[in-house]
Amino acid sequence: MQTGAAGSGLGPGVEFDRIRSLLEQARVSLPSHVRVGPGDDAAVVEGTSLVVSTDLSVEDVHFRRDWVTPEEIGFRAVSAALSDLAAMAASPLGVLVSVALPASEGTRTWDELGAGVASACERAHAPLVGGDLSASPGPLVLDVTVLGQAASPVLRSGAVPGDEIWVTGALGGSGGAVRLWEEGLQPPEELRQSYAHPTPRIAEARWLARQGDLHALIDLSDGLQGDAAHLAAASDVEVTLDLFRLPVHPRLRGLFGERVATELALTGGEDYELCFAAPPGSVEGHAAAFPGEFGVDLTRVGTVGAGSGVYLRARPGEAGRRTDTGAFDHFAGDASE
Amino acid sequence: MQTGAAGSGLGPGVEFDRIRSLLEQARVSLPSHVRVGPGDDAAVVEGTSLVVSTDLSVEDVHFRRDWVTPEEIGFRAVSAALSDLAAMAASPLGVLVSVALPASEGTRTWDELGAGVASACERAHAPLVGGDLSASPGPLVLDVTVLGQAASPVLRSGAVPGDEIWVTGALGGSGGAVRLWEEGLQPPEELRQSYAHPTPRIAEARWLARQGDLHALIDLSDGLQGDAAHLAAASDVEVTLDLFRLPVHPRLRGLFGERVATELALTGGEDYELCFAAPPGSVEGHAAAFPGEFGVDLTRVGTVGAGSGVYLRARPGEAGRRTDTGAFDHFAGDASE
Repeated sequence: MQTGAAGSGLGPGVEFDRIRSLLEQARVSLPSHVRVGPGDDAAVVEGTSLVVSTDLSVEDVHFRRDWVTPEEIGFRAVSAALSDLAAMAASPLGVLVSVALPASEGTRTWDELGAGVASACERAHAPLVGGDLSASPGPLVLDVTVLGQAASPVLRSGAVPGDEIWVTGALGGSGGAVRLWEEGLQPPEELRQSYAHPTPRIAEARWLARQGDLHALIDLSDGLQGDAAHLAAASDVEVTLDLFRLPVHPRLRGLFGERVATELALTGGEDYELCFAAPPGSVEGHAAAFPGEFGVDLTRVGTVGAGSGVYLRARPGEAGRRTDTGAFDHFAGDASE
Repeated sequence: MQTGAAGSGLGPGVEFDRIRSLLEQARVSLPSHVRVGPGDDAAVVEGTSLVVSTDLSVEDVHFRRDWVTPEEIGFRAVSAALSDLAAMAASPLGVLVSVALPASEGTRTWDELGAGVASACERAHAPLVGGDLSASPGPLVLDVTVLGQAASPVLRSGAVPGDEIWVTGALGGSGGAVRLWEEGLQPPEELRQSYAHPTPRIAEARWLARQGDLHALIDLSDGLQGDAAHLAAASDVEVTLDLFRLPVHPRLRGLFGERVATELALTGGEDYELCFAAPPGSVEGHAAAFPGEFGVDLTRVGTVGAGSGVYLRARPGEAGRRTDTGAFDHFAGDASE
């Protein structure tokens, strides 16, 4: 479950607490079918292995029409939603896509948007099972609901002190593209693709779950620092991230310099990579096989301790400095250049 | 599954075929998990008894802010979506609500909207299991996804020649309210409530399914004439509706006269009552118990024959006159005054 506007740096911020309070209010008064409630990446419907999540994409909040094509808007919205299934190590059962399309748009926009939706569904082996279409008197709005199944969904809440924190792939590519667009520049194609065609790590999550102990799992939609804070809060632990270990997207350092590249990898958001906690030494043995299976790296980026919040270490052996969620400026001086 | 803009008489029309073609395109190329595909009121996920549907509500397309309060917008959007579960005789498992809220709106709008969402969920015994919230740079947009289960979902496609056509409740109240608003008038409270607080007939549908032979079932979102045409097309039969039998909302004749009242009952839309086909004589026996159970009538309004399309009879014994879907003007002369 996403809460809008996070990570992209676009538009007004949205209070996460608002939707949560609505969900809590409605659940309290009802015979609950919800096993794992809202607040994790997706909800699990009680008595079933059904995992569900929904994800809005709003023009000029989550994307801009001068940044991405209609195909990319459709692909990206569906992939971002499917990433919530990956974050539970669930396998997709179906996708529903609702589109409010500006009345001025022609059939071509719709066809391209639909091609992106279909392509993202196909790549994730997730059938499109329903949808709705309406005219919009304003922005283009997509809402994507994903259904999956997971006999043993992996939650955010299972990390314990001593665990290692790992991530898939490279970080900051999507945020780097947004940063350049916001400066009126065209990002290089590799960064552009990170934003426009993210890969929900569905197969990767299931593979990792099969290898052994995934204590806690989350997908990186808000950025590593913010999502590590979610994982830490849900697990009631503290997470220390090693800035010198981050798998910074290879194009970022040359474009932005070390400091900003690290910032983007840490807080850029919308990479849709996985972040997970696992017992010490448990991942090392199969981490070498991961790139061969999936074409991306598996990187250890931190550790779990007793406490709360997220700490950052700029150098090995250094004591971590506590951060406030999402506020990179609070520790900017620590990023080595 | 709804396709936007239908029934309300608001905004630009939307092509039903567009979303359908997208769904068909995506399904063709995929290993399909869909047992009952898009095109019925909801989809049934293969290998499960899971029924899913999604339903957009867009400001100035499906509702206007000067017609309804935020509470009513929330209540109505959720109830309309839940009606798709009723239309399959499914029981609710959960509801997901995504809201794109204009940035200018305060906390109060959100609180009221949330109260309407929670109230509609509670009345239908449908837990809210997830959602998303975003700022909107334009209209207020709600997208509601409903999950239900039905071991034996009742489809649109099972009507056979000889069946009777029945409806629950009174028709045209919602359309009557819209008609008055569009003329700049305030509808009387009863009509206003028909529009603002519709009742998804979930318990009614399950009760009817338990009583015996429901051959085909649909909910009345587009209006009886339009939805009967959907049922006829899906079942490959013709439906004849008896205008003189319609359970016209009791406030309509006094406000609009006989002709317009009949038109509203036939094409007004968004009543969210049920329409079903059942073998001759099979419903009569328990129709008398229905009002005592649910507080609304069960009314026989037509018959099923071999053929295609929808025919209207203004008087008993008269031959029906064929209609084109949704175009009341084509047969307006037939409505008795």
